[in-house]
Amino acid sequence: MSRLRATISISLDGFGAGPDQSLETPLGVGGERLHDWATGLAVFAEMHGEDNPEGEVNASSDVIRGWWDNVGAGIMGRNMFGGGPGPWEGDWRGWWGDDPPYHVPVFVLTHHPREPLKMEGDTTFHFVTGGIEEALERATGAADGKDVWLMGGASAIRQYLEAGLLDEIEISLTPVLLGGGESLFAGVDASGVELEQARAVEAPGVTHLKYRVNRVG
Amino acid sequence: MSRLRATISISLDGFGAGPDQSLETPLGVGGERLHDWATGLAVFAEMHGEDNPEGEVNASSDVIRGWWDNVGAGIMGRNMFGGGPGPWEGDWRGWWGDDPPYHVPVFVLTHHPREPLKMEGDTTFHFVTGGIEEALERATGAADGKDVWLMGGASAIRQYLEAGLLDEIEISLTPVLLGGGESLFAGVDASGVELEQARAVEAPGVTHLKYRVNRVG
Repeated sequence: MSRLRATISISLDGFGAGPDQSLETPLGVGGERLHDWATGLAVFAEMHGEDNPEGEVNASSDVIRGWWDNVGAGIMGRNMFGGGPGPWEGDWRGWWGDDPPYHVPVFVLTHHPREPLKMEGDTTFHFVTGGIEEALERATGAADGKDVWLMGGASAIRQYLEAGLLDEIEISLTPVLLGGGESLFAGVDASGVELEQARAVEAPGVTHLKYRVNRVG
Repeated sequence: MSRLRATISISLDGFGAGPDQSLETPLGVGGERLHDWATGLAVFAEMHGEDNPEGEVNASSDVIRGWWDNVGAGIMGRNMFGGGPGPWEGDWRGWWGDDPPYHVPVFVLTHHPREPLKMEGDTTFHFVTGGIEEALERATGAADGKDVWLMGGASAIRQYLEAGLLDEIEISLTPVLLGGGESLFAGVDASGVELEQARAVEAPGVTHLKYRVNRVG
């Protein structure tokens, strides 16, 4: 059965991006530090279709590889896709170049309609204006029995969690204190779900914490 | 050299206690769930001077034992010691019975003076009205070369962290979402410190995350 699995890197104080996000600083002030543990890894380059012969291999490598395992479609929030808030202007095609690392249909949550955007390498961005349930329905259909990867950001993950639609979340917890930004859990209403710790992986500069999400009540 | 080491159990959304703390619910609503991983352990009973022949032994056992290692004195916030806010009334002696599990001098941060309180088993509570630096100075003196254990709660730990006085923090991160309460890091000003991940221990229902605190600037 298709499951909805989220992944996100956050600071120790719970932010998935720093304060003052903008086109110039898409991860907010200091937010790039949330990914320091990943960017030097060989597998990071590999997944982005590049080659980094000097890239590191450590306990995070298999964790990253696992994010792509058995994934048939993706969902992401508008802010993660980028292009600014409001109606689509110009030809914004995401942060990932012509060949994004996803290689599956990705459903972008937005209030503003837009035609699907076919990229190289099997990634197509679909823009969903009907809300999180419609996006999940379409992504599950496209995944054809495989899982759906909820790629972020914090706000999209929180909405799926609160709605009881999330099956699993893997948090990559970094030793960073941002002091502000986009919080993963602030104000969360978790009355309909319970988390169960499934796995913790210690790696250089990060701990990967996987939780199963169970519905209650 | 004497080091200041903090320990605290928090929810995944960052709270060291739930909302609406009171004499009846000292850990706030739902806050007792932060300690579910600990209370059934044999070592938990042992450290509290009791015997639990059916107590569990798991990866948390050595972590808990480590909290007492090389400790010569303790510091805790007024809220953790209890007895309500404001001037001392009655004969409040803490939550831990006649023989608290600490067995060292413990310095309680308070705005209200009170005579030292000698308990059984080498625990004496001293009440410090001069602020966190005075408490650390007195605790370090009493520790006589051993470490000082900053026992909590969240507010006391945050103050020592911001002041650059903390050397290490071990966070026992539980798969609980409280949605509100006493936050460990909300509003933290970490501009003077950087954390470095020292160790992560996966255990049933909890992950223990130890960080070294380095001063910067």
